[in-house]
Amino acid sequence: MASGTLLYAQSGGVTAVINATASAVLQEARSRRVKVLAARNGILGALREDLVDASKIPLATVRALAHTPGGAFGSCRYKLKSVEADRAKYERLIEVLRAHDVRWFLYNGGNDSADTALKVSQLAQEFDYPLTCIGVPKTIDNDLAVTDCCPGFGSAAKYTAVSVREAALDVAAMADTSTKVFVYEAMGRHAGWLAAAAGLAGQGPDDAPQIILFPERDYDEAAFLAQVKRVVERVGWCVVVASEGIRDKDGRFVADAGGGQDAFGHTQLGGVASHLAGRVKDTLGYKVHWTLPDYLQRSARHVASKTDVDQAMAVGRAAVQFALAGHNATMPTIRRMSDAPYRWTIEAAPLERVANHEKTMPAGFIRRDGFGITAAARRYLEPLIRGEAPPPYGRDGLPKYVTIDLPAIGKRLPGWNG
Amino acid sequence: MASGTLLYAQSGGVTAVINATASAVLQEARSRRVKVLAARNGILGALREDLVDASKIPLATVRALAHTPGGAFGSCRYKLKSVEADRAKYERLIEVLRAHDVRWFLYNGGNDSADTALKVSQLAQEFDYPLTCIGVPKTIDNDLAVTDCCPGFGSAAKYTAVSVREAALDVAAMADTSTKVFVYEAMGRHAGWLAAAAGLAGQGPDDAPQIILFPERDYDEAAFLAQVKRVVERVGWCVVVASEGIRDKDGRFVADAGGGQDAFGHTQLGGVASHLAGRVKDTLGYKVHWTLPDYLQRSARHVASKTDVDQAMAVGRAAVQFALAGHNATMPTIRRMSDAPYRWTIEAAPLERVANHEKTMPAGFIRRDGFGITAAARRYLEPLIRGEAPPPYGRDGLPKYVTIDLPAIGKRLPGWNG
Repeated sequence: MASGTLLYAQSGGVTAVINATASAVLQEARSRRVKVLAARNGILGALREDLVDASKIPLATVRALAHTPGGAFGSCRYKLKSVEADRAKYERLIEVLRAHDVRWFLYNGGNDSADTALKVSQLAQEFDYPLTCIGVPKTIDNDLAVTDCCPGFGSAAKYTAVSVREAALDVAAMADTSTKVFVYEAMGRHAGWLAAAAGLAGQGPDDAPQIILFPERDYDEAAFLAQVKRVVERVGWCVVVASEGIRDKDGRFVADAGGGQDAFGHTQLGGVASHLAGRVKDTLGYKVHWTLPDYLQRSARHVASKTDVDQAMAVGRAAVQFALAGHNATMPTIRRMSDAPYRWTIEAAPLERVANHEKTMPAGFIRRDGFGITAAARRYLEPLIRGEAPPPYGRDGLPKYVTIDLPAIGKRLPGWNG
Repeated sequence: MASGTLLYAQSGGVTAVINATASAVLQEARSRRVKVLAARNGILGALREDLVDASKIPLATVRALAHTPGGAFGSCRYKLKSVEADRAKYERLIEVLRAHDVRWFLYNGGNDSADTALKVSQLAQEFDYPLTCIGVPKTIDNDLAVTDCCPGFGSAAKYTAVSVREAALDVAAMADTSTKVFVYEAMGRHAGWLAAAAGLAGQGPDDAPQIILFPERDYDEAAFLAQVKRVVERVGWCVVVASEGIRDKDGRFVADAGGGQDAFGHTQLGGVASHLAGRVKDTLGYKVHWTLPDYLQRSARHVASKTDVDQAMAVGRAAVQFALAGHNATMPTIRRMSDAPYRWTIEAAPLERVANHEKTMPAGFIRRDGFGITAAARRYLEPLIRGEAPPPYGRDGLPKYVTIDLPAIGKRLPGWNG
């Protein structure tokens, strides 16, 4: 074993493939005889000194992580503020790392995690503690800077395109006497990447989804309803994909238009799809159905993109390699070499170019009328959903997913009262 | 070619595998040199004389139907009433069948379709028109009498169990700082078959789904909320699967508790999951997410059960065989020979034993506390989701589904003004 340990933690909303990254981290570390600790529930586990000895996970389980969704070590929504504001927490982190001889810290998450990893690396230098910090990219939102795409997005994108294509066949079959409009709500509070991916489900103007609503464009109810009417009159039915983050011209979230109270005065949870469906029904009179896949779209490992799985594992391997090579404060990123054939490679980006930046969707990806994607978007998106990487299934007809249940290793520090 | 034609039509809500039945019907008829017409949009196509010559579909397309969801010929929600009330329509049907020399009529649907097929067969006898009518089973609701299970149910059940298992891994990973309760709404207005299938996702009492709500039991809000609290305190998080058809002790649908008006006075479409999620949030204060898969659950051919696909094709083949053998007014049904190993065979049941009956879920399938399934339910359900039968995927990362776009054959009768 090399001297020192490597600490791995997962952060933010999990994906279908963040455990594939974890699997690659563990496998690469094993092959280099580096001991790996994992923090439970992300950075909170590091602060609480709630760590497990990931080197003790059986190899078969490590390999099975590559096809298991969720976050095997637990993730967290917990953002560290500036070093000034949260100095005690950063110092506690350094203390915990030092107590466990952690020389390499890999933080697997999005923008915030990259920022945390960067700050920890800066503070370690200030304390003269030898530490190499690596941000490992992950997010279904596809909004990280520098990297061409984000592990986790491709699988959610594939789920979206496949689901929309399948539901559209259902709607088309029933439209003569039943549902004519179907609304699908895609995740994406700030950027319409997943809504755009739905556009891959069809090719021609009459293919579903005939209407996509992007958060990058103001939602105009009259224009939307007129478009639904035009599509139904031409095609016979209409599939709408709406990003959860669409807003009207005054910046109000359409999702907030719902969320009133029900007939009993109870909180009514709504959302974009339920609102749009209600408006279509009330104003156009069409029978309408709607879906809110919610977490299903980010945990559907059973329909993961092979490209995405490959990239999730590649950033995991590279993270260990960069760490051991001392490339401090960097993130392995994906660089696209060509669209057709699709070729990509892993590079190292400085964390400061990633932290607190947000990649938005290029304006050229949205069609002029605002209701669909362009050929440029298709060229970008299509390779990311390409290839299948199904999990193994058991005799019971269910995917063989694994969970990790290791005891925490002994604490070496007093408890944390953060 | 044999003399006379066979007419095939699809009815009611479509499934992931009704086209597999259609594929088997077409392949079996071809091998027996029988010409096949298909009615567009179910029985309406027959009434309208809107028929296509399905014998002209290329063999590759016929085969691809076996892995394509939706209803390739169009389905309909259109119920014929009694012969007395709808006599003109039944007579029109006979007229159309006679005009196209239809000697075998295969109607692929649920209870209502079995009833229609039965009545058509009776009227044909009254008119002395030589016709063999076969009902072909299909429904995700699994509520047909006689048959052990219904083609379409197994795939929707597998989608449900897989999705719940995947989402649970997501929730478990995030529960420390984020969502603690996740609510999944399953189809099933009258019977909780799909909600029960979700129970296959876990084994032990702490596995998801920890709570299932069945329409067979009165919904008791206080008991439900107390159970959610117990589970969250014990496990750390809780996955709830609720059947859309749950009702309170006064028989009111919980889904109707929502559906009020939003802040702008617009119709608010709710549903069971959104209502339950709102109540959990309001009364227990847990962060909650919810999903309404809606049509995704019945069109998800990408995660179909192989058992289901095999049975859907078997009933299609048998339907043609029964028709040509003159087994009038029957339905091919699935008989379970044994649970372990799971063995089944196809039998013929008289349509009158199927039409207008409804199979409910045995009381012994629901746990005494009402929140889960029993070992008996597991023995029944598990074989139905067993095996994978993924569709082929294209280079674009999407399943290669087919659509059929044949011109209608020439009309031989005056138009129908039904």
